[in-house]
Amino acid sequence: MEQRIGLLTLAVDDLGRARSFYEQLGWIGQTVEETVFFQAGGIAIVVWSREKLAADCGLADRQLGGFDGVAIAHNVHSKAEVNHVLAAAKQAGATITRPAASTFYGGYAGVFCDLDGHAWEVAHNPGFALRDDGALIVPTFDTSA
Amino acid sequence: MEQRIGLLTLAVDDLGRARSFYEQLGWIGQTVEETVFFQAGGIAIVVWSREKLAADCGLADRQLGGFDGVAIAHNVHSKAEVNHVLAAAKQAGATITRPAASTFYGGYAGVFCDLDGHAWEVAHNPGFALRDDGALIVPTFDTSA
Repeated sequence: MEQRIGLLTLAVDDLGRARSFYEQLGWIGQTVEETVFFQAGGIAIVVWSREKLAADCGLADRQLGGFDGVAIAHNVHSKAEVNHVLAAAKQAGATITRPAASTFYGGYAGVFCDLDGHAWEVAHNPGFALRDDGALIVPTFDTSA
Repeated sequence: MEQRIGLLTLAVDDLGRARSFYEQLGWIGQTVEETVFFQAGGIAIVVWSREKLAADCGLADRQLGGFDGVAIAHNVHSKAEVNHVLAAAKQAGATITRPAASTFYGGYAGVFCDLDGHAWEVAHNPGFALRDDGALIVPTFDTSA
């Protein structure tokens, strides 16, 4: 199994509302077959009906609420950009679940949940390089300690 | 907000077990601060304690079970590779929740859930290009219809 993913699909209750939320943050998507595709660097972020996605996975759906077991991180270039993205998300209706603050690793980050409860951390982490094409590069840690 | 993500963190109950699962699929990670980082193309897949990740997001945790609201897709180059990856995942302890079969869009795909219930679709989709560097490119759909 090659070490990469292709798409990340987020289950939503209202496709139009979800598309509008991400468009308010500046993203541009394509809607086809009641699915929204956003090209996001080398992967696609996809928005699709919660009921259909659960069935497509062969899984029983369950109600939203609380932590859903994953967190998406959006790394940015500066502390100011963290504040800017969190403010834009709040303006678009997101809930700030962790206000921006300094982190133990020497960065600065906060978390919002989108309209369907998906958690997004917005982070400035000087230890993780962002290439010009937006790719995030994990540093080589000293794991010998 | 730039149109990309940096990391996708999967909550797990047992870090060593989760790392071992992905290593059995051929992935190579680094463990640091009780966190496993896998460089996956231009993003990082991260494995971290469920309890810590929920708290870090400012969210109440909840029990696993059923659909967790997201699905990760791993697109491959052929039908045979779909079968191969699903078999390797099953061998490593995953649950096949949708056996591999032809899809409405002319592809071939199946779904497994990892040891912590995260859904992975393994798909061959001739309509979505995979670049040499593994990046997945969303086609330009005709959305005028």
